[in-house]
This record gives sequence, C-alpha cells and structure tokens, in this order.
Amino acid sequence: MALIVQKYGGTSVGNPERIRNCARRILETQRAGNQVVAVVSAMSGVTDGLIKLAKEVSPEREPIEREMDVLLATGEQTTIALTAMAINALGGKAVSLTGAQAGISTDRVHTKARIVNITPDAVKKMLDEGNIVMLAGFQGETASGEITTLGRGGSDLTAIAMAAAIKADLCQIYTDVDGVYTCDPRVVKTAKKIEEISYEEMLEMASSGSKVMQSRSVEFANKFGVRFEVRNSMNNNPGTIVKEETPGMESVVVRGVSLERNQAKVTIDDVADRPGISAAIFGAISQANITIDMIVQNVSHDGITDISFTLGAAELPKAEAALKAVLPSLGDKTTLRTQSGIAKVSVVGIGMRSHSGVAAKMFKALADAKINIQMISTSEIKTAVIVEESEVENAARVVHTAFGLDA
Amino acid sequence: MALIVQKYGGTSVGNPERIRNCARRILETQRAGNQVVAVVSAMSGVTDGLIKLAKEVSPEREPIEREMDVLLATGEQTTIALTAMAINALGGKAVSLTGAQAGISTDRVHTKARIVNITPDAVKKMLDEGNIVMLAGFQGETASGEITTLGRGGSDLTAIAMAAAIKADLCQIYTDVDGVYTCDPRVVKTAKKIEEISYEEMLEMASSGSKVMQSRSVEFANKFGVRFEVRNSMNNNPGTIVKEETPGMESVVVRGVSLERNQAKVTIDDVADRPGISAAIFGAISQANITIDMIVQNVSHDGITDISFTLGAAELPKAEAALKAVLPSLGDKTTLRTQSGIAKVSVVGIGMRSHSGVAAKMFKALADAKINIQMISTSEIKTAVIVEESEVENAARVVHTAFGLDA
Repeated sequence: MALIVQKYGGTSVGNPERIRNCARRILETQRAGNQVVAVVSAMSGVTDGLIKLAKEVSPEREPIEREMDVLLATGEQTTIALTAMAINALGGKAVSLTGAQAGISTDRVHTKARIVNITPDAVKKMLDEGNIVMLAGFQGETASGEITTLGRGGSDLTAIAMAAAIKADLCQIYTDVDGVYTCDPRVVKTAKKIEEISYEEMLEMASSGSKVMQSRSVEFANKFGVRFEVRNSMNNNPGTIVKEETPGMESVVVRGVSLERNQAKVTIDDVADRPGISAAIFGAISQANITIDMIVQNVSHDGITDISFTLGAAELPKAEAALKAVLPSLGDKTTLRTQSGIAKVSVVGIGMRSHSGVAAKMFKALADAKINIQMISTSEIKTAVIVEESEVENAARVVHTAFGLDA
Repeated sequence: MALIVQKYGGTSVGNPERIRNCARRILETQRAGNQVVAVVSAMSGVTDGLIKLAKEVSPEREPIEREMDVLLATGEQTTIALTAMAINALGGKAVSLTGAQAGISTDRVHTKARIVNITPDAVKKMLDEGNIVMLAGFQGETASGEITTLGRGGSDLTAIAMAAAIKADLCQIYTDVDGVYTCDPRVVKTAKKIEEISYEEMLEMASSGSKVMQSRSVEFANKFGVRFEVRNSMNNNPGTIVKEETPGMESVVVRGVSLERNQAKVTIDDVADRPGISAAIFGAISQANITIDMIVQNVSHDGITDISFTLGAAELPKAEAALKAVLPSLGDKTTLRTQSGIAKVSVVGIGMRSHSGVAAKMFKALADAKINIQMISTSEIKTAVIVEESEVENAARVVHTAFGLDA
C-alpha cells in the first residue's frame, strides 16, 4: 500500500462532468490499494469571477488583501466539497478539508503567504479511517486563525508540501498536458515528452517560459526532496518524473529548449561607469515592483558604458517611467532606448556542466538559420539568447534539432 | 455608544451595487457612534446555484450532508469578504469572520445544526479595535472543527444568537419589506405596519403563513430575551419591534391576520373510536416525515368517529400513500377522503386571552360575506379557519376590517 498525493488543476475540475472524472480517477487509485490525498484548485474561471466581484465592490482602491484571501479561499472550498460528494456518490468514502482544517500554517502575508508548518494529524486520522482526503489547494491559516492564500501556483505547493509532511510515497501533479516536453509541441512538432528531469533543470525550464509549474513549488520539492510526477488528468499515459539529480542524467547534454515571448529590452546608453550606477538603475526598477530577467553590461570605454536588461513587454511603460526619474543622475549624456517585439530561447540541461561547446553549438545553429542574436545570458545549466519575436519559433526548432532532441 | 447587530438577507446583498449600499448603511451606523456586527446571507441565487452543482456531481444519491455544509458555507464567506472590502473601499475599517472564526459552536447535525455555544472573544476583540465585524450567517463549527450550517432561517438565527452572546443593545433584521404587517399588503390594501409585536404573536403569525422570519429564530429570541427590529434595507423607515410582551400590548385584541394558501384536507371517515387509533394514523404520517397543521376529531356516535387534518397540498400524495397502508387496521368501514384547493385564515393577538368574543366576531364577519367555514382551530392567542382557496383573500379582508385593523 502506497501513500499518494494527487493534485488536480482548475481545468481538470472545470465542470461537474470533469469533477466526476477526477473523482473516478482518485477512487481507482484508492481501490488499487493506496491511501490518497487529492489536492484541488478552484474550478477554472471561478477565481477570475471572484476577482471581478471584488473589483466591483471596491472601485476606490485595491480590495484589501485580508478579505481577498477570505474571498478566494471559497473557490477551492467549493471544489473539495463537490469532489468529495462525487466520490461518495460513486460508492467511495471521502471527506474534505480546507487548508486550515488540514493544519497548513502560514505566515501573515496575505495573498502570497508562505507555508511555515504543516500539522497533518487530521489528514492522517482521516486516511487511517479509510477516507480519501480532498484537500483545498492554495490556502492556509495564520497562527491566529486568519485565512491566507499562497499566491500563484499555490495548489501545486500545497500538494508538494503535504506530500513532504505525510512522507508520501508519490506525488502526482495532474494537468492538461502529458508532462514536460523538450519544447512546446505547438512550436516544435518533433518535441517529445521528457521521462525524468532534475529539479534544477525543471527550475530553469520554468524560468525560461515552460510554465508547467511555478518555480516556487519546484524549489520547495527540491528543498524537501519530494519526487513528483507531472501527468495528464485526461489519459493514463506516464508523465514526467521530477526528482533529485542522478549520475545518469548528465549523459544528456540538453534536456529541453524553452521559449518566452513578449519580451522587451531596455538599454541605457552612455552611463558613467562608477560605483552606485547599477544600484540606482535597478533600485528604481525594484521599487516599481518590476521583475526583470537578463542584465548585460559590457566593458566600458573612457569611463562610459551601456547597460541593457530585458523584462516582460507589459512592464515596459512602468519601467520607462521609473527610469526617467533617475536618468539625470546617471551621466551627462545618458539616454534611454527601449525595444519590444523580442523573445528568448533557452537550452537547459545539467549535462552542460560537464560538456563544453553547448553555447557554440547553439550559436552556430542559429547562425546557419540566419537568425541574429541580440543578447546572451548563461548560467551553469542554461544558455539563453534574445532574438526577434518573429524568429523565435524557427530558432527553437533549429536549436531543438541541433541538440538531437527531435523524436 | 450602542452595540448593534444588523442582519442583511440575500436580496439585500444580491449584487455588487447592493453590497455597496449595505456597506454604506453599516458604515453610517458605526459613524453615528456605535459598534456594529453585521451578519450577511449568501447573495441571492448563490445557494441555489451551489445546490444545483451538488446534484450534478452526485446524481446517484443525495449529496452527503457533511460536504453540503462545506459547499454552502462558501456562499456567506463570499459575502462577508465582499462587504468588508466595500466598507474598506468607502473609508471604513471592517474585518470578516466565518462562523467558525466567530466562535459559533454547533452540534454535529449537518445541514440543520443547532447552536450550542458562542465564544465571542474574537468578535469583541475586533470591535474593540475599532472594526466593523462582518459575520457569516447560517454557519458554525462542531467541537472537532467541522463546518456546519444551521438550516432554513439560519442567518437570522446567527444574528439573534450573536446579539444575545455579546449582549447587544439592538438587533436589526434587514429584509425587503418595511416590517411585519397586519396582513399581506398585496391582499389587504389597507394593511398597516405593526409597530410592536410580542414574540408569541410573531410566532403565531409565522406559523400561520406570514413568513417574514422562521419560527426558530423568534423562539430563540424569546428564550434569550433578545429584542429585535424587522426593517427594510432599501429605506430608512422604522420597522417592527419584536419583544417580550408588555401590559399595554393586550389592549389590541387582534394584532394581525395571516393567510396560508395551498392547503389540503384529509378526512378519515368511520374510524373505530378506541385507544390507539389516533396514534396509528399520526404515527404513519410522522414516519413519512409529513408536517401537518390542524387536527379535528369530533365526538363519536355508536363508537364510530371521523378524524380530519390539514397539511400543505404538496404533501398530499405522500400522506395518502402512508395512510392507505394503515387504513385496514382502523375500522371495518373506514374510508379516506382528500380535498385540496383550501386555505387558512388566522387572527392572532395576545389580547384574545383577556377579551371574549373574538371567534364569534370572526365567524360573523365571514358569514356576512357568505364565506363557508370548513374547519376551526384555536389556540390561546389564535383563531384559525379553513375556507375555499378562492375565498381566502376576501375572507382576510373582511376579518381585517371587522377587527378594526384597516389603516
């Protein structure tokens, strides 16, 4: 008998029929001789509907965050009740637990709380009584009993954290794709499903645009050593196992290629090359709550340099406004240039650590396809380049082929 | 400074605009120098939508009641969050509390739990910190932390029970009418709002079809001496005060006239007049979970009698089925007759105790209008008659006039 945590996203529980399908799958898992905790998200569309209501009752200001959490937590509470009902209707035995009831304690940072502790006594007791436990994802409770939510990707985090707390044998993240692919199959027809991927690779893929899961859940799994499987709730195909790095994994140099569209570039020309300049620029950006990606600064000539960085195109107006305020302090001739309509292509793989020539091979493949590289950024297990948005799909295809990833 | 509990029903919070109207009213009450706890129901239509979903995921059986409570509790949780947001957006300071967070402890009878205890520490603390407390109606928590709901009229009960627990100075039940009327104004144009009514009268009015509130909330208020006001959330008119009986109240003989439509009558003819017969009849009815109203048994002739009772017309088929099973045991010639298309008119008033001739005056008014009385039932403060459904409105009007209730 194994102890299994499953997680079903909003699409998988998007209507009564789909809820019943999930209920059947959960029940089959239990009947195969396992104990099951199933984490569910809000039905797709429900959270957006609640946010719309919140904005309508609070037009003067952003809805206050404490109450946003009370509101949004109803989405998952609805799904746990409906799924537990469905399982019982199908002849099974299920009980639902909210985050608070399941002992998920968080800090007090409403709308993006962090889990500080899990006391899984209620979950264990209900499992031991033969129940399937339907657990509300995305939510928890502060020490003083206030409802909190965990922010984006919160339901995945609930599943992985609960799997760690109850020492589950298996954690399955059900989604609407078969697993993690070597590239987006809509772009690269020859992309194939990855059987096993390390936490680090999964993190780099996520940060490079392959949004199967939010990075924080993968980071949590990495920290607590929770091996999990990303699989499809609509079929029985095996998925992708995400786990600690094993020696054999390094034999594959590049695990996957990911692409991220709608990027923009900001270049600050003729900046004085003296201490405090970068701090002034990125302090202004950070204060405006803008998340940036690549930063490139080249060597200076005559005490003058250029600094470029990339960010999501939607953030560009905010970034321009923030920088204009500090521009005069950066240098006498400092100017600001921006460009949208660019995209990022990354190759990711822990094998890069022990294999040289990955960047060279990537650049050659792009050059052969006459694709110009605008910026380059590398990490230990990733090489990323910025290209024209119109060329990103072709870039992904040629790189995918160059590293032998085609099925 | 007064401590006020207000309650707003589903229609009053039925959309974002109405929620903001309630928020304004609540905030005005606080700004007038009071502490305010506001109890809200689910937005109108929400509970029905959730019940529909429950039936869709559980077509094989009634959705299990534990999960029904988890599901339905989301309705009020949504409203408390939205109303608290609206109050904050309007410049006030509000926090929401679910039933569990507010310390409302109930028994374990899911979907119709009873409040066993209220620990209002969190409510008091939040009030003392200058907050308006938005409290979810209709819900509580068992000693072991499971979510329960209180059944029909549950939000009124939450308001009255919390008012008792925190020793509120005033409890206002906001609804979509101006208060309790001497009769349904849609039927009797001259009906007027009652300024004060005793708990007993309110109970008899409720049980006679004037469904401003469920009886159990009035009973609870009576038991704990909670004086409350029924008033309209759409205007500022004074409402009806429901309170303990005072000597002056008896000077009005009849407080109001109520009518109840869609009644049916069951007559069992030629029943042997011996011990156990009534028990057999009403035992069968009770086992079928049918609620009955009037019972009439006349004196017997030659050891044979007739028994009649009334009930809601919708329950008639169930009652017939239940009785047919026991009919042979009631007497050799026993037969069953049923009649629907009848209605009940009642006059209610604690003044009846000390005034004679109420029944006679009622019967004369009906006789003058050529309305035939089919059955009569009386209590200490009520006289009720059954008439043809087609005559019930006219009956209510002539009785209303006869007792001097016309405005």
